[in-house]
Amino acid sequence: MSAGPVQAAYEALIAHARQTQALASAAGVLGWDQETMMPRDAAPQRAAALAAREAVIHARHASAEVGGWLATIEAQPDALGPEAAAQARLVARAHARAVRVPARLASELARVTSLAQGHWAAARAADDVPAFLPWLEQVIALRREEAGHLARPGQEAYDALLELYEPGATAEGLEAMFAALRPRLVALRDRALGADRQPARLVGNFGTEGQMRLARLIAGTFGYDWSRGRLDLAVHPFSSGSGADVRITTRVDEADPFNCLYSTLHEVGHATYEQAVAPHLALTPAGQGASMGVHESQSRLYENQLGRSAAFSGWLHGRMEAEFGPLDMDAEAFFGTVNRLEEGFIRTEADEVQYNLHVALRFGLERDLIAGRLAPADLEEAWNAAFQRDFGRRPPRPALGMLQDVHWSVGLFGYFPTYTLGNVYAGLLHRALRADLPDLDADLSRGVPGPALDWLRTRLQCHGSLLEPAALIAQATGTEETGTPDPGPLLAYLEAKFAAIYGL
Amino acid sequence: MSAGPVQAAYEALIAHARQTQALASAAGVLGWDQETMMPRDAAPQRAAALAAREAVIHARHASAEVGGWLATIEAQPDALGPEAAAQARLVARAHARAVRVPARLASELARVTSLAQGHWAAARAADDVPAFLPWLEQVIALRREEAGHLARPGQEAYDALLELYEPGATAEGLEAMFAALRPRLVALRDRALGADRQPARLVGNFGTEGQMRLARLIAGTFGYDWSRGRLDLAVHPFSSGSGADVRITTRVDEADPFNCLYSTLHEVGHATYEQAVAPHLALTPAGQGASMGVHESQSRLYENQLGRSAAFSGWLHGRMEAEFGPLDMDAEAFFGTVNRLEEGFIRTEADEVQYNLHVALRFGLERDLIAGRLAPADLEEAWNAAFQRDFGRRPPRPALGMLQDVHWSVGLFGYFPTYTLGNVYAGLLHRALRADLPDLDADLSRGVPGPALDWLRTRLQCHGSLLEPAALIAQATGTEETGTPDPGPLLAYLEAKFAAIYGL
Repeated sequence: MSAGPVQAAYEALIAHARQTQALASAAGVLGWDQETMMPRDAAPQRAAALAAREAVIHARHASAEVGGWLATIEAQPDALGPEAAAQARLVARAHARAVRVPARLASELARVTSLAQGHWAAARAADDVPAFLPWLEQVIALRREEAGHLARPGQEAYDALLELYEPGATAEGLEAMFAALRPRLVALRDRALGADRQPARLVGNFGTEGQMRLARLIAGTFGYDWSRGRLDLAVHPFSSGSGADVRITTRVDEADPFNCLYSTLHEVGHATYEQAVAPHLALTPAGQGASMGVHESQSRLYENQLGRSAAFSGWLHGRMEAEFGPLDMDAEAFFGTVNRLEEGFIRTEADEVQYNLHVALRFGLERDLIAGRLAPADLEEAWNAAFQRDFGRRPPRPALGMLQDVHWSVGLFGYFPTYTLGNVYAGLLHRALRADLPDLDADLSRGVPGPALDWLRTRLQCHGSLLEPAALIAQATGTEETGTPDPGPLLAYLEAKFAAIYGL
Repeated sequence: MSAGPVQAAYEALIAHARQTQALASAAGVLGWDQETMMPRDAAPQRAAALAAREAVIHARHASAEVGGWLATIEAQPDALGPEAAAQARLVARAHARAVRVPARLASELARVTSLAQGHWAAARAADDVPAFLPWLEQVIALRREEAGHLARPGQEAYDALLELYEPGATAEGLEAMFAALRPRLVALRDRALGADRQPARLVGNFGTEGQMRLARLIAGTFGYDWSRGRLDLAVHPFSSGSGADVRITTRVDEADPFNCLYSTLHEVGHATYEQAVAPHLALTPAGQGASMGVHESQSRLYENQLGRSAAFSGWLHGRMEAEFGPLDMDAEAFFGTVNRLEEGFIRTEADEVQYNLHVALRFGLERDLIAGRLAPADLEEAWNAAFQRDFGRRPPRPALGMLQDVHWSVGLFGYFPTYTLGNVYAGLLHRALRADLPDLDADLSRGVPGPALDWLRTRLQCHGSLLEPAALIAQATGTEETGTPDPGPLLAYLEAKFAAIYGL
């Protein structure tokens, strides 16, 4: 048998997939619009539009035509080059999933989560858990149903959802990763908070326009391409889109400029990853970041390992003074301030040490919710008890507790742990990058992250989803592929950095 | 044969159509986004997304399933109630069109027009006709091809396109309508411009923020529902969307506040029409305005017969002075000023008398372009010659001539004459409305258009597309349905109004 039929099947498959990606790309814009621009009462109509779109995309993924092309390709596994084989593998994965999930369920999930998001926002604003519970229950029921269709025999339902965001990850592996992280993070947190030396808090009023000017400056400095993106305000900062249209949002708190500046830098990490994917991959299955965890590794590396380094924060100190006038601290103290540990309640505002404890808490709770071990009605108490256990106090109101994140309202179960996976990947990447770039601090202190960005772009970002996450990280860092990534480098980096800041 | 199978077929048909409408509604948001928010270099990616979406919608309209349901329904024409029959008729029309136009062509049209629009904008900014010509040629070729598929035996290609915007209209009927309008409009224009009494021009600088505040005030005054809409800036004012998400745009010229204020009121006419369609029709085939002509009748009635009346302009005079300080004219003179005839070149800035002369010019040219009697390369000279004939001078540069409108770049051939149809419909509606509302001027002088808006809402707007345009206008005005609408009331209104202003 010649390669002819396989080539022909692949050409048909990729043309079909490009059209599916083009349809999906419109959803990115609609999602962004919903968060930034959409009129208030348009929510039900938008939900109907998203449900209809989801049904169309689901049908395309599941189509018998696609199944036929895949069968032809899989009959001769070595007939395609590595890039085409990777594309076919991604299509096959989406096809297998779509075939298992009924179209009605896919469409209903899109509709309900689109509505639930609005109800979550209203419930959070009113600290009204009972108003949100019926929606949460509906979303969980639908995702449990979906997981039931997706799970392989003997597979935990939660793992079937996790795989949608992080191919290759398992709850068991994550459990081990969190078990390794938790005691050392708790110990570091407790030592830092108990230390004699405490960084000062930044005090003052920092005008919105100045913050947005600085946010734009930082975004440009970190390579965000404005001709293919834009920055707007939203309740919850996010990045959306791929290829030639990757938009970011931020928020402004005039008492806390770091909220705006570092959330912008975080989203720039996500967005420049998408912008850096090789152009010939645009609107193909491999034309996006490799996984949520890998995505988060980029955003966290930009935000923390680079953005909160002593070198870069020194440069930022100068830009802050240029924008807002003299600060009541020098650059060295400022480095402590941007890394200051706080006894807060909000994950997105957490420092680097405690951030992964917030994630660990959510991972445990959502795994129980999906397993049916925890009822949604009991979530608030379970959250508060877990918070007491991990942080030594209870959230004073649900907006600071179980209502703080959008994720569960939009059905993102299995998503939270990818944040910590991303931090662990970032630890590995940062170690490798530092070894290759001895002058990085000198560059960062001049506001020039370019060499680090180039390293990430060529080693990792340009490849899109051609490699599976574990293989991609291994290739980028020049290490062996492992099942669950090693949290050692992240912990070593955190322990060294915070020992220096807190004089431990 | 019982009504059972027909009912079942109708239920399936309308459920399918609702999903198609939901998909189409997303396109409205994407179109708005492209004009207001989209990053510059995202155009090709957006074009691909729109082409993919068009292919999906085309396939849905053309599907054999839909054909089967329609055949069942059409076998027993009296089995459905009038509303269901109207919905089925609209689906049948879309199905018949989609079956005749190849999917490849529909998709290619969406892709090319999405790109051509950007090239038109660049060409207009640079006054560069040669840069636009290849795109115009491509668009015309594609639409001629489409018209070839759509036209019935013996039907003029142009009429096949015209029907897409105005069911029931023909080029021959429009030709007669323009022939009746042209001499009386030219005579009125020449008498007014030659009169001794000439309204003053408004002189001054009117800040952007003040203009936008007033624009919002006017929009709210005319019933625009902000919870289902929003107002933004764009190069070309437009309204888009339907049902619960109807957005409008405007533009600001600090030397000419009427540009912003009256274009806003115009778009509010379009938008409130969509917002007024009965909620149970939302996301159904009948859930939008009845035609482009009927749409334009609402926007022009709001803008001109109501907005530029002596009564309402008196109220506006007061609001202008409150916002910008004393004007150098009283309310009576201000009425003349908002209706002042100008020797301009731009259709969208034309006064009520000359506006339809601008449209007549485009109608003649585009009919020739589609018939192949006029080559795109000869359009500039043809435009300038026609302008010389109708307005007595030549446009000094193409941005003031053939490059001024977006329409042809996005393939809108057969669309321009619906503007004049709308004005003629507005003349008929205005006559009927005035007869029913003797106190209207007293209301308008207090800034209360409510009774007129209610009249339009209950007589016309709430019905969506349930009736064909001619039947809808006849029903709303309580007159007999005619082939081509009577331009008499519009001409009588214009002649009376401008005789008063210019002392003719």
